Amino acid sequence: MSSDSTTTAARFSSEIYASRLSRAAEYADQAGLDALLVTPGPDLQYLLGSRAGSFERLICLVIPADGTTPTVVVPRLELAALKESAVADLGLTVSDWVDGVSPYDIVAASLPAGAATAVDDAMPALHFVPLANRLGRTPILATAVLRRLRMLKDDAEIDALRRAGQAIDRVHSRMSDFLVVGRTEAAVAEAIAAAILEEGHTEAAFIIVGSGPHGADPHHEVSDRVIEAGDVVVIDIGGPVAPGYNSDSTRTYVMGEPSAEVAAQYATLERAQQAAVDAVKPGVTAESIDAAARDILVAEGLGEAFLHRTGHGIGLSVHEEPYIVEGNDIELAEGMAFSIEPGIYFPGLWGARIEDIVVVTAGGCESVNLRPHGLTVLPIG
Amino acid sequence: MSSDSTTTAARFSSEIYASRLSRAAEYADQAGLDALLVTPGPDLQYLLGSRAGSFERLICLVIPADGTTPTVVVPRLELAALKESAVADLGLTVSDWVDGVSPYDIVAASLPAGAATAVDDAMPALHFVPLANRLGRTPILATAVLRRLRMLKDDAEIDALRRAGQAIDRVHSRMSDFLVVGRTEAAVAEAIAAAILEEGHTEAAFIIVGSGPHGADPHHEVSDRVIEAGDVVVIDIGGPVAPGYNSDSTRTYVMGEPSAEVAAQYATLERAQQAAVDAVKPGVTAESIDAAARDILVAEGLGEAFLHRTGHGIGLSVHEEPYIVEGNDIELAEGMAFSIEPGIYFPGLWGARIEDIVVVTAGGCESVNLRPHGLTVLPIG
Repeated sequence: MSSDSTTTAARFSSEIYASRLSRAAEYADQAGLDALLVTPGPDLQYLLGSRAGSFERLICLVIPADGTTPTVVVPRLELAALKESAVADLGLTVSDWVDGVSPYDIVAASLPAGAATAVDDAMPALHFVPLANRLGRTPILATAVLRRLRMLKDDAEIDALRRAGQAIDRVHSRMSDFLVVGRTEAAVAEAIAAAILEEGHTEAAFIIVGSGPHGADPHHEVSDRVIEAGDVVVIDIGGPVAPGYNSDSTRTYVMGEPSAEVAAQYATLERAQQAAVDAVKPGVTAESIDAAARDILVAEGLGEAFLHRTGHGIGLSVHEEPYIVEGNDIELAEGMAFSIEPGIYFPGLWGARIEDIVVVTAGGCESVNLRPHGLTVLPIG
Repeated sequence: MSSDSTTTAARFSSEIYASRLSRAAEYADQAGLDALLVTPGPDLQYLLGSRAGSFERLICLVIPADGTTPTVVVPRLELAALKESAVADLGLTVSDWVDGVSPYDIVAASLPAGAATAVDDAMPALHFVPLANRLGRTPILATAVLRRLRMLKDDAEIDALRRAGQAIDRVHSRMSDFLVVGRTEAAVAEAIAAAILEEGHTEAAFIIVGSGPHGADPHHEVSDRVIEAGDVVVIDIGGPVAPGYNSDSTRTYVMGEPSAEVAAQYATLERAQQAAVDAVKPGVTAESIDAAARDILVAEGLGEAFLHRTGHGIGLSVHEEPYIVEGNDIELAEGMAFSIEPGIYFPGLWGARIEDIVVVTAGGCESVNLRPHGLTVLPIG
């Protein structure tokens, strides 16, 4: 049978999901929509506490904008996957279907004719196209409606992000046990993966060990390259803690004392990262935080070396709004959580990055990562 | 930075991908399309040998139907993820983009105005909607075009499926070490997960341990229920072997001797599964295989107890065409691979399922799973 559904017992209280569903309906109404259609992915997890997943068989939460009871359209075979969600507690309508029936007909039947709908970002074309055909009106993206909710973390979410931050900080604090001259990046990553789980994550979702010239590729993962004395090493790691909120923290290490040039350029990076953190407060734009870091690097001739955005929102997804990037004029508000992670990259030579997750507060921001920012010198033998 | 891209060194030779791309263009042309647009997922892996992945930043393979060179649109940050694919060997055009640029403009610029396009099933709405808007013409699904390719496995793929089948057979052959009275389903699953990796899979993708009444839910996964003497236990397990082809095999075990009723009903299930296997040959329809198993169960009064389709295609995806289900009149052809997995389910009591992966041959089919089909009696103390 080989289901691809997964469930977790860990979710928030049902009241939290009730409030989210009600606000989702309200925002959908304000956006002139008749309903939101949400398939498995982080949006469904956010709205129902359900990690149910099914690729080719449609699972779809229909949230009417008029505030009437939402419906969950679900294959009968996947009903069990909803058990641990808030669906039963909240008294949602469950409309199950069996192979041979069109689930798109069921979704359409729950909506007024010609309904204006919006879908979650993750809905696969496999479902989007037949839904659009069946509805007779192409859905738009619910990105803007749902990000209004998901961007603003409540206390329980901020607590989860803090737990995630502390867990990944504990992994970084043990780095001298893992990152050792003579080991391959892959062996280092394997030891880090075990520590990520030991420290309370439910999954080692991503591990970058960028040693020496590999550190100059921001999206390098791991390789069979052996760590050498003198290497600057970028370690970017994270994963989810229950009920699904992610850590994501980068520190840069050096095997033995760094050269004067490396130390000087790293000091500039550290200053740029701090400037971006210091710029965070409610009311400023996301792009202004990017500029705060970038201006310092540009002024020191390192503008070309900083080849990506300054950060990304984080929560149930590792990457979500608000993106801290030029052109994003979203105004920051209390409760938003995102990474601040400028980096400098010198192809063929070395790279460095410093990344913390911060949460916007009334007066500025709180970092959930508390490890020192400096280039950490590790012993070479 | 936290890339969500992954790569594997393991892929087939570049000639295989060249042939697939050329046939994809040919089939697209026959379908009246101007181009195929393929984003990360099993279709991209099939066509390029690339497991590159990126959710919010568009990666898109554009295959012109006129046979001219395909283009890969890719964020500059993800270029490294293409290194191990066939992209360079095949001399494809790589069009990289940086944050701030619209990748949809780049895709559109590679196509004639008003182009008729089709997209892969997995393309998320996040990309489908802006692509459709930018192209000015809504893409259709490439399902039919790509399944013509992906359904017919070549020798290298069949070899990979055989290796996967042998690997999962070895796990089933060790089941008496894992499935023990007094253990929880979760503990049994943990031991099985380790064995799945030990026997050569790259991931333990799914594990169902359905003991006693849990066996009556075909999509049950695991729980804290303790295995008891007398339990009938459904074990449905699998995962990928390099370069990404999946195993998927179910056997049913019983803790101690089964009752006469269980033995009799299981014998009917075994006959139904064998009848479906015996019915497989080129030229018959997928639904006729479903009927071959179902007719026997219906005749014995077990029709209501068999509440799902008989099988699904398998390859780079665990579930893909051809689906062995009523209403699917696809004609089977040499090289198609799919599961044959009838089951019987008695809510609150017990369930059983037998699943093999078979490959259609000139004269019938070859099963890649060779473990005995009978109800396997395990010792109870």
